[in-house]
Amino acid sequence: MPEFFNVLPPDEARALLLAQLTAVLPPETIATEDALGRVTATPLTAPHPLPQFRRSTMDGYAVRAADTYGASESLPAFLQVIGEIPMGQPAHLHLQTGQAALVHTGGMIPDTADAVVQVEHTQVIGGQIAVGSEQLAVSSGQSPNLAVSPPPISQSPHFLYEIEVFKAVAVGQNVLQVGEDVGQGAEILPAGHWLRPQDVGGLLALGIMQVVVARRPCVGILATGDEVIPPEQAAGPGQIRDINSYTVAGMARQAGGIPILGGIIPDDFEALYTAAADLLATCDMLVLSAGSSVSVRDMTVQVIEKLGQPGVLLHGVATRPGKPTIVGAVAGKPVLGLPGNPVSAMIQFDMFGVPAIYRLQGVKELPRQGVVWARLSQNIASESGREDYVPARLNDGPDGLLATPVFGKSNLIYTLVNADGLIKVPLNKNGLQAGEWVHVRIF
Amino acid sequence: MPEFFNVLPPDEARALLLAQLTAVLPPETIATEDALGRVTATPLTAPHPLPQFRRSTMDGYAVRAADTYGASESLPAFLQVIGEIPMGQPAHLHLQTGQAALVHTGGMIPDTADAVVQVEHTQVIGGQIAVGSEQLAVSSGQSPNLAVSPPPISQSPHFLYEIEVFKAVAVGQNVLQVGEDVGQGAEILPAGHWLRPQDVGGLLALGIMQVVVARRPCVGILATGDEVIPPEQAAGPGQIRDINSYTVAGMARQAGGIPILGGIIPDDFEALYTAAADLLATCDMLVLSAGSSVSVRDMTVQVIEKLGQPGVLLHGVATRPGKPTIVGAVAGKPVLGLPGNPVSAMIQFDMFGVPAIYRLQGVKELPRQGVVWARLSQNIASESGREDYVPARLNDGPDGLLATPVFGKSNLIYTLVNADGLIKVPLNKNGLQAGEWVHVRIF
Repeated sequence: MPEFFNVLPPDEARALLLAQLTAVLPPETIATEDALGRVTATPLTAPHPLPQFRRSTMDGYAVRAADTYGASESLPAFLQVIGEIPMGQPAHLHLQTGQAALVHTGGMIPDTADAVVQVEHTQVIGGQIAVGSEQLAVSSGQSPNLAVSPPPISQSPHFLYEIEVFKAVAVGQNVLQVGEDVGQGAEILPAGHWLRPQDVGGLLALGIMQVVVARRPCVGILATGDEVIPPEQAAGPGQIRDINSYTVAGMARQAGGIPILGGIIPDDFEALYTAAADLLATCDMLVLSAGSSVSVRDMTVQVIEKLGQPGVLLHGVATRPGKPTIVGAVAGKPVLGLPGNPVSAMIQFDMFGVPAIYRLQGVKELPRQGVVWARLSQNIASESGREDYVPARLNDGPDGLLATPVFGKSNLIYTLVNADGLIKVPLNKNGLQAGEWVHVRIF
Repeated sequence: MPEFFNVLPPDEARALLLAQLTAVLPPETIATEDALGRVTATPLTAPHPLPQFRRSTMDGYAVRAADTYGASESLPAFLQVIGEIPMGQPAHLHLQTGQAALVHTGGMIPDTADAVVQVEHTQVIGGQIAVGSEQLAVSSGQSPNLAVSPPPISQSPHFLYEIEVFKAVAVGQNVLQVGEDVGQGAEILPAGHWLRPQDVGGLLALGIMQVVVARRPCVGILATGDEVIPPEQAAGPGQIRDINSYTVAGMARQAGGIPILGGIIPDDFEALYTAAADLLATCDMLVLSAGSSVSVRDMTVQVIEKLGQPGVLLHGVATRPGKPTIVGAVAGKPVLGLPGNPVSAMIQFDMFGVPAIYRLQGVKELPRQGVVWARLSQNIASESGREDYVPARLNDGPDGLLATPVFGKSNLIYTLVNADGLIKVPLNKNGLQAGEWVHVRIF
């Protein structure tokens, strides 16, 4: 029988479970492009700096900064534009003192330049723009047409036109330095990082086309109960359709798991034990939607104990709903016995199952849950020493969001369907007052 | 040329775009089990009430409430238990005055009962429990073993044992009424509802095995720029790998879209127009990652104008980063010209692209974005009249979360890789002070 047969606060209970999950699932190598929502299995380092060359952050002129010092509207600096750096081309131009090169945002800066003057702070005085073999006359005050992309500038540039610069630039101004985004050899992502769109982009920017990630955890789900029937069947008197298999499967999928539905098992110890042992053998995690009567819960405890070591870690969590949750582990695999009530089952799976799925993938810092702040529309009663979760609807109010509790028994799935989130009443509170600002977890 | 060539605040700009998206994509019928993250195309009503029969919310005894009135520890009520209602079976027992039936949590209540007394508020006085042909003696003070599931009770129950009831119950107490979760014919979900795990569960609870949802929007994505190369290629001087196609694709997928990558197009009007027109013809939305130089942006504006009516809706959003965003629509399809800088591109796609994808699926209320509150670690400068988004890392601090800005130019994708979210500096603020509580959008 369980070593801890007492009711624990949710944070302690979760820590107890996660401490059992020491092994990360075996890694696999996949295309970076397909790695959204997966978890890195190894740290990743930058094979080269990013950017690999100095880039302009502005449309303007690459210059030697010293040539602009002291420049102002009344006393401009004069520079000779010796050519243009086309996008995607090396910047072969060699700037002498007093020279500049036309550059576009994102374009490469010549070695001999150390800053960029924004085009808005310059004015063309006159001269000739060489576009291939053509010569375009540039009259005073007119900016060169930056929409024209001339062919590559020759290696021996000649004087094209002169500009006035009205504002000094400092060394490095408007220039991205080599490695400013990420330095060569720098750790760009640790192991155990959940990959978001920007992470995928960051890897591809470095040419990292494949990534080693943890295998997606297989989450076996069993529903139990003589009264439970598959959703496709018509429910006779006393019968209800299985909900929990599907809500848990959806949540498992959202966390990166692969749900495997093991079906509905009657309230019979041997039948439940056999089904549970079979599913646990092939899955990385097992969830029993355990029914709500004391007898069925006791049977679930016995099944989990028989499955292996350490078995049941705790039976009872200081939350409402969901107090009779059974949290266990067998040989490093989480095994949960959820209450049969659909609201309790979802809230408890969110509390224990979702973090476990992330942890099996090696996620170190669990993804932060989104909450919104809202003003409470009416009092909520609670008891100190218990964390309450109250489904709530969110509406725009005169001074921000208004959270209206959706009261209903935890047997009622539609309390969650009609809710936008869950108000959490903290462990040490005796309830919340109307008008109070509360945080509502998006659910 | 565009009617609105001014810079609009983001909310106005988004409203302008969404107003163009009047048609919802054609619906398709899919299995409810697979409908997670899809959007309902029609309102759904309950084909029958839920629950369909009166259910006990407790382990205990179904009673006539009046039989318990006045009962207390010192003056208990005495009731005759005439049988048990097994789980999943109809409750055929007929209770006379003074009689009770053993029920389990979730079990059906006999027609003649109107409340349930919790087993904890009862005590067995003595008698015989009939289990099939066996007779189990029950001694005083002992509760029947609720783990034993006897075979169906006979239609003609006989006296089994007597209980003391120590607490009165009101009519309806500990009983779920027919339709208490949802009434027959009630609208359970409106059209335009984004389906979450609880919604899938709620539909299956009613036996709704298929659901009509909006088709997933196809999001065509083009990268432009002579300097841009595919990620698998080695980048020469002046060249950079495509990032935006992949970050935008990831965000589109998270919003329910199907990204189609149209590749990298050189900075050439005809090439860009042809590629854009082809992709727009087969997709429901078009995103041009438009480069950052003025010339490329101007070309993008011209391409969007040529694609059809109304074309460019606005060119410029009062945000930082991302001001030079081009927002347009062609024949009800959103067309976006994103800045080439990867940070700007992501923030602007989040601002316009993601809501557009939801709206194309008919989502009426856009899903609320998750934010967390955190104390700001240092001052952030901003300008009134502009909404700033500053990448930030979140850490646990002494009095809650601490948000540390990840400063860096919007060209640097690793500012977002290294961030947990975005601090929003509101339109009318001149910056935020260290120590201030700010909300950080999980990103």
